Amino acid sequence: MLPFSNIAIIGLGLIGSSIAHSVRASMAGARITGFDADPTVRARVIELGFCDDVSDSAGAAVTDADLVMLCVPVGAMAAIAAEIADDLPADAIVSDVGSSKGSVMEVLSKTLPSARIIPAHPVAGTEHSGPDAGFATLFHDRWCILTPPDDALEGDVEQVKAFWEKMGANIEIMDAKHHDLVLAVTSHLPHLIAYTIVGTASDLEDVTRSEVIKYSAGGFRDFTRIAASDPTMWRDVFMSNKDAVLEMLQRFSEDLTALQRAIRWDKGDELFDLFTKTRAIRRRIIEEGQDDAAPDFGRSHE
Amino acid sequence: MLPFSNIAIIGLGLIGSSIAHSVRASMAGARITGFDADPTVRARVIELGFCDDVSDSAGAAVTDADLVMLCVPVGAMAAIAAEIADDLPADAIVSDVGSSKGSVMEVLSKTLPSARIIPAHPVAGTEHSGPDAGFATLFHDRWCILTPPDDALEGDVEQVKAFWEKMGANIEIMDAKHHDLVLAVTSHLPHLIAYTIVGTASDLEDVTRSEVIKYSAGGFRDFTRIAASDPTMWRDVFMSNKDAVLEMLQRFSEDLTALQRAIRWDKGDELFDLFTKTRAIRRRIIEEGQDDAAPDFGRSHE
Repeated sequence: MLPFSNIAIIGLGLIGSSIAHSVRASMAGARITGFDADPTVRARVIELGFCDDVSDSAGAAVTDADLVMLCVPVGAMAAIAAEIADDLPADAIVSDVGSSKGSVMEVLSKTLPSARIIPAHPVAGTEHSGPDAGFATLFHDRWCILTPPDDALEGDVEQVKAFWEKMGANIEIMDAKHHDLVLAVTSHLPHLIAYTIVGTASDLEDVTRSEVIKYSAGGFRDFTRIAASDPTMWRDVFMSNKDAVLEMLQRFSEDLTALQRAIRWDKGDELFDLFTKTRAIRRRIIEEGQDDAAPDFGRSHE
Repeated sequence: MLPFSNIAIIGLGLIGSSIAHSVRASMAGARITGFDADPTVRARVIELGFCDDVSDSAGAAVTDADLVMLCVPVGAMAAIAAEIADDLPADAIVSDVGSSKGSVMEVLSKTLPSARIIPAHPVAGTEHSGPDAGFATLFHDRWCILTPPDDALEGDVEQVKAFWEKMGANIEIMDAKHHDLVLAVTSHLPHLIAYTIVGTASDLEDVTRSEVIKYSAGGFRDFTRIAASDPTMWRDVFMSNKDAVLEMLQRFSEDLTALQRAIRWDKGDELFDLFTKTRAIRRRIIEEGQDDAAPDFGRSHE
């Protein structure tokens, strides 16, 4: 039994295309209709062939759907919801993959007041973007968080859960507000900091950009990966989860100031204690299968 | 022709043991004598067999050496230099692998005033520590920075250069002060920030540690790798390169404050412009062979 048989994927970047590949791999028989606002992306998707059909409008893509997956940047949700409003079948479930959930739910429920909305956030990705970046195993052993509204039908939640489980994900159900706080620290703050330090390093007057690149293996290059993520997507995340991001940033800044003082006043013990504690977190992430145990992320050293 | 035939390696952690493996692989015939202050490390190195000889004292390890490689945390340099002072052959070259160079040169030249000192810093490593962590290819295609003092003999510099080139490294010669500034931004600041954010995330009252670990694939886990690096080594780096680290931290904090304001005042364009620029740096790091081109650092997705 397939959880859905007619899936419309709106937005065919890394996540949208990965869902398509993953549906193909795990839900044979399900039909995939794709749409992307960018005509060059649509043309490329036709070449790549991972959708059964590529529509020329968002409305046309959803007319026969029992699941509509919105895979656009969160700042584009309102516009795309308005575009599909007239064509959305009454019994279709609308879901999304946005990285912030409170604001997305607010926008979708306003624009599609009678729709059955079950927001979702697969915590998975790479730094690459676009329809060529997707692959079927992206969600394997990753967590997908559902944030259903209080009045969601239990059957709808179960169906969306089954859909993600088929793609290899583990499911957690969470309040949207709590989701936004948790992801502010595990995802949004790390991206903000990585973008910042890469910016700082490339704008120094006494260290050249070429030196920064040459000696990046000392640690810096680890930050450049997530600072290469999609600019539109991330701009929207920070705009839409502003309160939680600013709150976490405040905590981080306080802790950084404390370390700065410890360095200034030669308090080596304080540094040593923190540096010992942080090792344990890494160990648990590896134990729980959320990162590679191989040193250096498993990068090849020839 | 071997650059050196009797190499004493003092400190047999990740870097010391990698040098030993690498000498074995690229300089057949060179004799390696090892010493580590920790007797359990010495016993383990005898088991692992990557040294020809393991001495019970630093002095005994250097008596026949033509190259003495100090691979201890920079805070331990003064003590170890004092230990070898009486046994150091007059014509031996003394080098080190410390991550800060100004303070190390100061300490070594004070304790070993007549020694031929050529400080070095291989910009390479993993988050693992100890004699089991080393491997022969760690320095392949990585940069090794030499910071010879003004009165160094040209022949000595050439010999140390040849030694690192045999191990696969590329060489750059630099003033110690400039080295300390460059590495403050490409290595020390990234480590400081990674330690900080991992500490922040593990001390929140409204997000559990278990949630932080579960959803770490959203970006956080990239930071935990370098925050798992050796605590003693890193405490010493921050203490010994204090001025440059504090200077770079100040620049970073200013840039972070600017981003914080952009988020607070909904200036999406400012975010977008920065996020676009940072992508280019990643691209150049990959082009110049300093990181893996594969998405997600080449982590396996099954």
